[in-house]
Amino acid sequence: MTTPDFQRARSPEAKLLREAAILDAARRLGAERGIREVTLTDIASAVDMHKSAMLRYFETREEIFLRLTAEGWQDWAPALAARVRAVTRPDADAVAAAFASTLAARGMFCDLLAQTPLNLERNVSVEKVREFKLTTRDGLGQIVPAVRAALPGLTEQDGVDLVAAATSMAGTFHQIATPGPEVAALYRSDPRLSHALVEVEPRLARILGAMLRGMLA
Amino acid sequence: MTTPDFQRARSPEAKLLREAAILDAARRLGAERGIREVTLTDIASAVDMHKSAMLRYFETREEIFLRLTAEGWQDWAPALAARVRAVTRPDADAVAAAFASTLAARGMFCDLLAQTPLNLERNVSVEKVREFKLTTRDGLGQIVPAVRAALPGLTEQDGVDLVAAATSMAGTFHQIATPGPEVAALYRSDPRLSHALVEVEPRLARILGAMLRGMLA
Repeated sequence: MTTPDFQRARSPEAKLLREAAILDAARRLGAERGIREVTLTDIASAVDMHKSAMLRYFETREEIFLRLTAEGWQDWAPALAARVRAVTRPDADAVAAAFASTLAARGMFCDLLAQTPLNLERNVSVEKVREFKLTTRDGLGQIVPAVRAALPGLTEQDGVDLVAAATSMAGTFHQIATPGPEVAALYRSDPRLSHALVEVEPRLARILGAMLRGMLA
Repeated sequence: MTTPDFQRARSPEAKLLREAAILDAARRLGAERGIREVTLTDIASAVDMHKSAMLRYFETREEIFLRLTAEGWQDWAPALAARVRAVTRPDADAVAAAFASTLAARGMFCDLLAQTPLNLERNVSVEKVREFKLTTRDGLGQIVPAVRAALPGLTEQDGVDLVAAATSMAGTFHQIATPGPEVAALYRSDPRLSHALVEVEPRLARILGAMLRGMLA
């Protein structure tokens, strides 16, 4: 990582390579520690760059993680749409299970979903937020038609509400399900706190299943 | 705020007064700016104390805001339970409206709800988390019976899922509905981004109403 080529990226190709290396490092550190714990300095040190040099590629740590969130939508939306289209006997529970399983399988994406409105959209330029919102709009444009084809009783607004509910709950439930080690030990030791234990996938599947049955009723 | 009595709080009463002053300042600053923007230094300066002196009352800024979140539950849970009991013809939509309106009327509580699993529970002692979880458990113990009395078809788990869904979505939707000024201007200016505009109360009411109809079906 300390070759001269990497240190002084002049060509567009070299710039893209370096940008990709920064995103890779952020992805790896975020998956290991949780997004909350990763600083810009951590990322810079993982790619062996000075923080001030890294700012030529990304203005803030939030911009880096917002990019990863956009990538997360580009990965999740087609995967979910394909899963929904593959359901042989579509009903509320089958579609809810597709949402729950594709989200629960993407822990870092869930972490990023929770961070997005609180933090990631608040320390980046307006243009970066615009790009990001257009990416989520594309994601909606893949998911909602697939869901409405499977369950023709749903309106467009039902579809948008479903995605909003699924992504906001996946973000929060993931945070609740991955507390620090002391809090995890507390949960296990004190039976009065069992309500605080959350399993992301079954809870999401139950809630989204009920929501879809209600929308179809 | 600079009287000698206030500066040197020796008696238990004086300590409680000072603690209350700290919580008041945090509440006021949090409501004005959003929780994310309030530092321990801001709070210390609002009560005219040195940061190191304030640490005798609260170990971290997260502990201060977790206390305000606990107070938020102690305010919201009985208010919601009373609202649900007062519904004359209880059905899914009436109960959903009670959740949506009592949450939407409590903007800072919604802000705190979103901050809790991400931040506030991650920088306080295990004992403080235990106290907080017992407060939310008391809140559940008020809300769930009121909801099940109104809608006897619901199970205990339905009630717990409903509160989890309502509080997690209220937290996230509040964050989305209160972006910074540039992002708010972007939303108004770019019609492609209309999906990103969220009105907390009607969206919560629609989603929770569908969920309850599905649970009762």
